[in-house]
Amino acid sequence: MTLRELAERLHCRLDGDAAIEVTRVTGIEHAGPGDLTFIANPKYHGFLETTRAAAVLVTPGVPRPANGPALLVCDRPYLAFAQALGLLVQASLPEPGIDPTSVVAADAQVGSGVSIGALAVVGAGARIGDRTVLFPGVVVGPGAVVGADCVIHARVSVRERVRIGDRVVVQDGAVIGSDGFGFARQQDGTHLKIPQHADVVIEDDVEIGANTTIDRPAVGETRIHRGAKIDNLVQVAHGVTIGQRTLLAAQVGVAGSTVIEDDVTLAGQVGVAGHLRIGKGVIATAQTGIPNSVDPGTLISGYPAIPNRDWLKSSAVFRNLPALKKRVVELERRLAELEEKLHACPPSSEG
Amino acid sequence: MTLRELAERLHCRLDGDAAIEVTRVTGIEHAGPGDLTFIANPKYHGFLETTRAAAVLVTPGVPRPANGPALLVCDRPYLAFAQALGLLVQASLPEPGIDPTSVVAADAQVGSGVSIGALAVVGAGARIGDRTVLFPGVVVGPGAVVGADCVIHARVSVRERVRIGDRVVVQDGAVIGSDGFGFARQQDGTHLKIPQHADVVIEDDVEIGANTTIDRPAVGETRIHRGAKIDNLVQVAHGVTIGQRTLLAAQVGVAGSTVIEDDVTLAGQVGVAGHLRIGKGVIATAQTGIPNSVDPGTLISGYPAIPNRDWLKSSAVFRNLPALKKRVVELERRLAELEEKLHACPPSSEG
Amino acid sequence: MTLRELAERLHCRLDGDAAIEVTRVTGIEHAGPGDLTFIANPKYHGFLETTRAAAVLVTPGVPRPANGPALLVCDRPYLAFAQALGLLVQASLPEPGIDPTSVVAADAQVGSGVSIGALAVVGAGARIGDRTVLFPGVVVGPGAVVGADCVIHARVSVRERVRIGDRVVVQDGAVIGSDGFGFARQQDGTHLKIPQHADVVIEDDVEIGANTTIDRPAVGETRIHRGAKIDNLVQVAHGVTIGQRTLLAAQVGVAGSTVIEDDVTLAGQVGVAGHLRIGKGVIATAQTGIPNSVDPGTLISGYPAIPNRDWLKSSAVFRNLPALKKRVVELERRLAELEEKLHACPPSSEG
Repeated sequence: MTLRELAERLHCRLDGDAAIEVTRVTGIEHAGPGDLTFIANPKYHGFLETTRAAAVLVTPGVPRPANGPALLVCDRPYLAFAQALGLLVQASLPEPGIDPTSVVAADAQVGSGVSIGALAVVGAGARIGDRTVLFPGVVVGPGAVVGADCVIHARVSVRERVRIGDRVVVQDGAVIGSDGFGFARQQDGTHLKIPQHADVVIEDDVEIGANTTIDRPAVGETRIHRGAKIDNLVQVAHGVTIGQRTLLAAQVGVAGSTVIEDDVTLAGQVGVAGHLRIGKGVIATAQTGIPNSVDPGTLISGYPAIPNRDWLKSSAVFRNLPALKKRVVELERRLAELEEKLHACPPSSEG
Repeated sequence: MTLRELAERLHCRLDGDAAIEVTRVTGIEHAGPGDLTFIANPKYHGFLETTRAAAVLVTPGVPRPANGPALLVCDRPYLAFAQALGLLVQASLPEPGIDPTSVVAADAQVGSGVSIGALAVVGAGARIGDRTVLFPGVVVGPGAVVGADCVIHARVSVRERVRIGDRVVVQDGAVIGSDGFGFARQQDGTHLKIPQHADVVIEDDVEIGANTTIDRPAVGETRIHRGAKIDNLVQVAHGVTIGQRTLLAAQVGVAGSTVIEDDVTLAGQVGVAGHLRIGKGVIATAQTGIPNSVDPGTLISGYPAIPNRDWLKSSAVFRNLPALKKRVVELERRLAELEEKLHACPPSSEG
Repeated sequence: MTLRELAERLHCRLDGDAAIEVTRVTGIEHAGPGDLTFIANPKYHGFLETTRAAAVLVTPGVPRPANGPALLVCDRPYLAFAQALGLLVQASLPEPGIDPTSVVAADAQVGSGVSIGALAVVGAGARIGDRTVLFPGVVVGPGAVVGADCVIHARVSVRERVRIGDRVVVQDGAVIGSDGFGFARQQDGTHLKIPQHADVVIEDDVEIGANTTIDRPAVGETRIHRGAKIDNLVQVAHGVTIGQRTLLAAQVGVAGSTVIEDDVTLAGQVGVAGHLRIGKGVIATAQTGIPNSVDPGTLISGYPAIPNRDWLKSSAVFRNLPALKKRVVELERRLAELEEKLHACPPSSEG
């Protein structure tokens, strides 16, 4: 693709030779001739002098070095970079068709243009929407619904009656609709399993990471709202709601019945207790442990979670706690000395 | 089912119309006509005034509102709720039979009434007990034993020679009997793999969550005792023992050779170091990090773990550490001032 | 195997009857006649008096009790124990051959002596090296390369174009080459998926644990260097580099683009933020949260991570923070009293 065409498609202003051909998108350190790359962070502007890239996506106002690469100027270089990848990288989705080694129930409804890979299983009464791809080894349970234009990677479990919207991407090994962890303690101390047969709904445009698990509840539903993105090895317990556009990074765990509202970001390994409400736009930094509901718009950290600002300050004191303790001990010594002295000082000697 | 029949089966006292038909069990907020629900927590008693449920499971002494739902009165409403779900919800286990696309070794022993799903694999010499269900894509290794009345969900790995008892439930994608993480460092700094070929035993009535991993050791055994329940994405390392009725919530990790005794509860994301003993009845709150053995009956929290009571108090001080530090600085200032003053004060002026 | 032969093979000095036959390797507590065991830690020397083992691997200088077991003396008993397991335990790898139920693309290249298990899938243009074993249900994507002498356990995903070296072991359910978690926020707040189609390279002699996930990046590569060992349920994000011989224990998470250098050890549940460099030989204890780059050779702990020594001291103060606070309050009270007293004391009474 020429830079002229690329600039048009990405809505960028071009500073450089419009005829140059770009064939690959890559990181600025590895870029060579024919490569497009990007700089979103001003601290990397120095790379413009040295990169061998054909063109670089930058924000307005960045000067183009003499003999430097062509510049594609736009407000959001990272977003344009993502779009450029979509234009230049060949997605390698399999051709439509039902592999003869797959096992599709006679009464399953399979849309047009669907690809069902080798050894995939589609259960009785399940529905697979148009143009959706099931990779090898996927198991779709009886009565489950997968929408249109989904990509379900190898060896995913979509359990019975789970409902998945359109344009949903699920990475390998994820499990959607496993039994929630629900038991009632009996008088002899043993645990009676509470049957977990209620609903799981994955709305449109959700992405679910590799080996992530999303449980179904006993009653009510587990719901991942439209446009939420969930990374690998995340645990979403029974009855949880994940809001629109919310991001859950890898190894996050959300306990039962908690509601995560829209536009929340939980960084890696964050844990959220059950029956809470995490307000719209909350951001929790990595490993935060959240035992209580959180007001919208809060930035939190720590275990247990507190406002990030407080946590940073407290953590700074924490690392010097032994010194602080010594200062207290020293104060006690000096104060005792003073008290001793003052005891000798005549309290009633009026001036 | 009529309320009369339900009351009898759940051993509840009925306050209301015995002829009412109940068809579904649900949460109190979503309940409508024909629904049974429950209130285990007094703070939800207000819902009795507004719910449209046909009947509600409650503890003794809760007054029935005029025109309110029928009450089913019992000591443990949550347990009765679990039992009601068992009565009213149709479990959807597949019919007995061996799917023609499954691959069952000629010398495997398959009991009566067993269901082996599409594309499941049963290795040489393996045994599957009566009425057990293997869902699609399950792989049972050579010489493994799965007891009677088990439910092994899709794409579970039961590795070679693993022994599983009766009535065990395993959720999708779990791995039982993978190699423990055991290496011996050699003089050149590389790691020699220690072969991990010893035993894994899962006793009766255990439940194992989705994508959970249970490793086998080099010598000795890994054992999950009767009635233990393990949630999703839990790591049980080689040589670990999990006690009877112990509960491990999602994303818990237990390192090698540690013994967790009976009736322990580890909440989500708890980590336990290796070669420890966690005493009977210990409870660790979410994200607790346990570096040492713990006495029976202790409630612990924190990283590193300390008694919960202490942790709560210390955490409360932690969030105000900067203020505490300021107070120490202020004390130092005032004390220095005082020392200065007192230096001026004649110490020897006897009264 | 006789003790004479074993001593020769393990390069140990034998103190005992060279003709004794050893058939099994086990832990010292469970050892019986015919068993070889080991003591690496001096605190277990007492077991020498009571064990029924035929022979024990020990360090030089350990006295052999009268009527005690034979001793095999060497500098590294644990390493010798690992080697002895390799000699005495029968590895149970399946015979070479391609199972007729597997689905191998016509143009895939399969080396000599390869074993492809039931219902495994090998995609178009993929290559499987000599003597490698694919267990049942493995899915190797189009264009992927698996080297020689690898053992890929059941239901592993090796995604398209992933490159795996020789002698690599992958435990069940692991996913190699899933899409990295990369999105660009658009002006309407939704997230545009950044296509993740770049490379994943697993070098020789790497081990990857059960249900671990290793993502591929948008540009550049994710690389696990030679001899690294990764435990179960670990997350390795897109663009991460893991150094040679580095050990990642279970449930570790490493965020995008971070470089972990050689010989690093991250204990269980450690989290590492993105775009960092963790220096050669760093050790992080369990649950450490690492927000910044770490100098080589450092031993760190805590959340956020600080030097282990400091963390231990600060943690010791932390558990007594309420008492420390009380001491500050008491100091304030006494100081106020003193100030009061001193106010009464004539400041200007010169001596």
